[in-house]
Amino acid sequence: MNVGFIGLGIMGSRMAARLQQAGHRLTVHNRTRGRAEALLKAGAAWAATPAEAARGAECVLTMLSEPSVVRAAAEGERGLLAGLGKGALWMDCSTVNPSFAREMGAACAACGGRYLDAPVTGSKGPAEKGELGFFVGGAEADLAAVRPLLDAMGNAVNPVGPVGMGAAMKMVVNLLLGAGAVAFVEALVLGESLGLERGKLLDSLLGGRMTPGFLSPKKSSLASRSYDVNFPLQWLHKDLQLVSDTAYETGVSLPCAHAAKEVFALARRAGLGEQDYIAVYEALARAGRG
Amino acid sequence: MNVGFIGLGIMGSRMAARLQQAGHRLTVHNRTRGRAEALLKAGAAWAATPAEAARGAECVLTMLSEPSVVRAAAEGERGLLAGLGKGALWMDCSTVNPSFAREMGAACAACGGRYLDAPVTGSKGPAEKGELGFFVGGAEADLAAVRPLLDAMGNAVNPVGPVGMGAAMKMVVNLLLGAGAVAFVEALVLGESLGLERGKLLDSLLGGRMTPGFLSPKKSSLASRSYDVNFPLQWLHKDLQLVSDTAYETGVSLPCAHAAKEVFALARRAGLGEQDYIAVYEALARAGRG
Amino acid sequence: MNVGFIGLGIMGSRMAARLQQAGHRLTVHNRTRGRAEALLKAGAAWAATPAEAARGAECVLTMLSEPSVVRAAAEGERGLLAGLGKGALWMDCSTVNPSFAREMGAACAACGGRYLDAPVTGSKGPAEKGELGFFVGGAEADLAAVRPLLDAMGNAVNPVGPVGMGAAMKMVVNLLLGAGAVAFVEALVLGESLGLERGKLLDSLLGGRMTPGFLSPKKSSLASRSYDVNFPLQWLHKDLQLVSDTAYETGVSLPCAHAAKEVFALARRAGLGEQDYIAVYEALARAGRG
Amino acid sequence: MNVGFIGLGIMGSRMAARLQQAGHRLTVHNRTRGRAEALLKAGAAWAATPAEAARGAECVLTMLSEPSVVRAAAEGERGLLAGLGKGALWMDCSTVNPSFAREMGAACAACGGRYLDAPVTGSKGPAEKGELGFFVGGAEADLAAVRPLLDAMGNAVNPVGPVGMGAAMKMVVNLLLGAGAVAFVEALVLGESLGLERGKLLDSLLGGRMTPGFLSPKKSSLASRSYDVNFPLQWLHKDLQLVSDTAYETGVSLPCAHAAKEVFALARRAGLGEQDYIAVYEALARAGRG
Repeated sequence: MNVGFIGLGIMGSRMAARLQQAGHRLTVHNRTRGRAEALLKAGAAWAATPAEAARGAECVLTMLSEPSVVRAAAEGERGLLAGLGKGALWMDCSTVNPSFAREMGAACAACGGRYLDAPVTGSKGPAEKGELGFFVGGAEADLAAVRPLLDAMGNAVNPVGPVGMGAAMKMVVNLLLGAGAVAFVEALVLGESLGLERGKLLDSLLGGRMTPGFLSPKKSSLASRSYDVNFPLQWLHKDLQLVSDTAYETGVSLPCAHAAKEVFALARRAGLGEQDYIAVYEALARAGRG
Repeated sequence: MNVGFIGLGIMGSRMAARLQQAGHRLTVHNRTRGRAEALLKAGAAWAATPAEAARGAECVLTMLSEPSVVRAAAEGERGLLAGLGKGALWMDCSTVNPSFAREMGAACAACGGRYLDAPVTGSKGPAEKGELGFFVGGAEADLAAVRPLLDAMGNAVNPVGPVGMGAAMKMVVNLLLGAGAVAFVEALVLGESLGLERGKLLDSLLGGRMTPGFLSPKKSSLASRSYDVNFPLQWLHKDLQLVSDTAYETGVSLPCAHAAKEVFALARRAGLGEQDYIAVYEALARAGRG
Repeated sequence: MNVGFIGLGIMGSRMAARLQQAGHRLTVHNRTRGRAEALLKAGAAWAATPAEAARGAECVLTMLSEPSVVRAAAEGERGLLAGLGKGALWMDCSTVNPSFAREMGAACAACGGRYLDAPVTGSKGPAEKGELGFFVGGAEADLAAVRPLLDAMGNAVNPVGPVGMGAAMKMVVNLLLGAGAVAFVEALVLGESLGLERGKLLDSLLGGRMTPGFLSPKKSSLASRSYDVNFPLQWLHKDLQLVSDTAYETGVSLPCAHAAKEVFALARRAGLGEQDYIAVYEALARAGRG
Repeated sequence: MNVGFIGLGIMGSRMAARLQQAGHRLTVHNRTRGRAEALLKAGAAWAATPAEAARGAECVLTMLSEPSVVRAAAEGERGLLAGLGKGALWMDCSTVNPSFAREMGAACAACGGRYLDAPVTGSKGPAEKGELGFFVGGAEADLAAVRPLLDAMGNAVNPVGPVGMGAAMKMVVNLLLGAGAVAFVEALVLGESLGLERGKLLDSLLGGRMTPGFLSPKKSSLASRSYDVNFPLQWLHKDLQLVSDTAYETGVSLPCAHAAKEVFALARRAGLGEQDYIAVYEALARAGRG
């Protein structure tokens, strides 16, 4: 397929490489061209604007940091919607809030395009190996059309419903990620304050029925207090802010998720934003040395 | 062994029955005698006071609702410490805070007794089948002495360190239980507010890597919104209050755990205290009908 | 002055009337024309679009519910920026977040206009009597130009700094409003749970040094549990969401403000959104009847 | 009157001095004798135990740090209840939780004594000048009996109801103190993050209708970030823990108060426990330098 790919960060560059390896023809765009070099060498074309990346593409794929960045890439003369052909498909893999996804879906339809919100689960490693998961919102036929792309990048495609529902599911999952991480580091901090050793706590709790599986790979980071970045803390903080905005819109009360969000805010304030999200441990553990 | 058993509630009655079935000789005490009938018929002796239950016992086991109730059973003329023989062992299986456990340990030692804090993991079902877990704080030799009892009641004995460390580990685990439950019901409530069906959310989230295993058995309760009691909500609320008191004592900050605790308070206020703890879902889901 | 006035809700209609009474010539616009009738009868001109309201105006004043509504009134062919004359002034009195105010300020400047963010303190009563307060962000000369308008509507004009700082100060004040209200109703709920009478608590706490002055007028509402609307609960909830978004942007952690926000969310969910904000009391007091 | 006075800390020593100056005959006890020197020189008698301090006293007054310390001073052979004469009065001015006050009241009655819970409002300065406030729980006749003592120490005596209600009112007030302080420092931190100067924020907010009066004297501390101790942070943290325990007992949900409590926990962890409570500002302001 002819694919326009916009956004070549940690995740996007790896996802684009998977598509390229699977034989799809890529036209790529990124705010800074440097990140595109490897893909260009391997045969991708460069697009100076999102609109150019969209021109002639059967599918434009975006993997950007947040709604305002997606909006900037979509709208205006240089935006992807200006370049998108009639009947072409825009699949946004960024993590965005559901109402924003629906807004983009409507804008895309108004331009004669088709739209899917297909946020990703999994981080750097799975992106490299093509083992991402996707929650997909949109029409079945549209999903079928991009299936080859999804299969090249991931191994778990979950159709969730109409446009916006992929984003909805992503909010749910990232709430669990953020609140689950903070609950766990609170348990660690409490245990250590009582004289239990962190190593023993990690051994007895991770992998067991008291903790979610996504925490298991964090054992060595927490043991050593050095945090290899898989999913930067500031991104999860951002996602929790999207959860907050979404909860406001739908009118639900999420006390725990907000308490967790504010611990992430403390962690960012302590300079931990670019470390892995599980470094949120430091925000509560380190306080004594402030 | 000659065992004094004090506290025949949902858990205690089942644990005592397991001991009896394993051939231990029981002298039992409970605030109301009615709950002891089955055990008495099966050969247990009745003790009118905790002190009587302790007299002649190699091990006195307590399974009570909270520290103040344990204290009442331990202290004073009619308390178990008054009846405990030199060198006899008191094993408190109640959920108490670590500083209280250490206080009881010291009081027991002052009376010439030995003490273990051995709080339980698992609820009604595992109690009946002898599949409980125990976190045990205290001397190794003391643990060895009661090993046959623990093996009759459970299948996972975890020695954690000196007196108080069993209770410490229990605080850690129940923090994860309470905060994990609230984080999950918040995820459900958010998802439903976005149009995702509760049944589908339960199917896709429970048993997966985003949720801890202890939530998996709650699927049918949450699907049907009728809550078979395994672990009453008000007990977990109480445990979270013990977590709060413990965090105060050791000087750590637990924002998420406290937010969760206050959701449990809302749930109790809504009349859900005697239902299963996962009915905390109703506190956030139900609000619209208030 | 020739004034374009956009947004004739509870506050806007009263503010516009004050301007009219002071002799300014109004061209008014509102989503629904009905709310303009009194002003039209008294001589105001009707504008079918925000652009029309802006055409020929020395100052366009907006008093709208939230940033997205302001944006809709500002941008596009029918938006006020399209009608604004060179050198004319747009004063936004809506409560918006500071980054949004700066964005609008830049958009206005790009159209050759001048911009002030001048959010309001005070509610229905003060609006009617011309006793509002204004926090004004923007150039001194621009503030001087609209001074007659501000003096007609209010009695306390606080210049705070460059564009965006009016909105900044408003965020600070509404955080105090929201968190202060919840802290107070928690104190009431706690006191009542201990057997203190609500009436006596109100008498001894309101007007004293333990409570902020803005709560004093709420005594009769809280005593009677019937809530005359001065400032609707859902608006303050919205403002707290703007506070949350702003704190995310500037990277600060606000645990109490977020806890308060989630109590407002509970209150909205309980159907209290259109009552006065102090009805947030019901969210915590009423729970037992859920 | 013959007065036994137990507890000569920052507050107690000043309160005892006021009584002495008013001509009452004091027998004093403190954990460490050093703090009693000034009073002894001025004619007070020394008591080696609480029981001794109570012997012969018409009124025993306690001003201690927390319930467990009060209990230790009250119970046992050396405790004040052992020394209290028939019909003598124990007035506990410590900040304790209401259920504890009722327990002490009952214990006192069982010893033939009379009991008042009379917690104090005001800190070091007012204590020195005899300008404290008292919330008094207990029988009217008992209050009348100690009226001369209260008038020597303070200028605002508020009878609140039966035993326990003084403590109840104190919980209400200290919830407002703790949550109000945190709400205000959050407002400061937010404002500063937006570019508003702290000095200007303090000038415009303190003393106005958005903030409670108790914050006004904190202006210079917050301006200079050096915190003269009037009321140590760790004491208010302790009081918020008593609020938490009380809310648990009465079954109410206090999300904001708990969020505030956890910010105090962060502040203590950052080593601020012995500074004035308004140093809680540092817990949220300082984080970036951790």
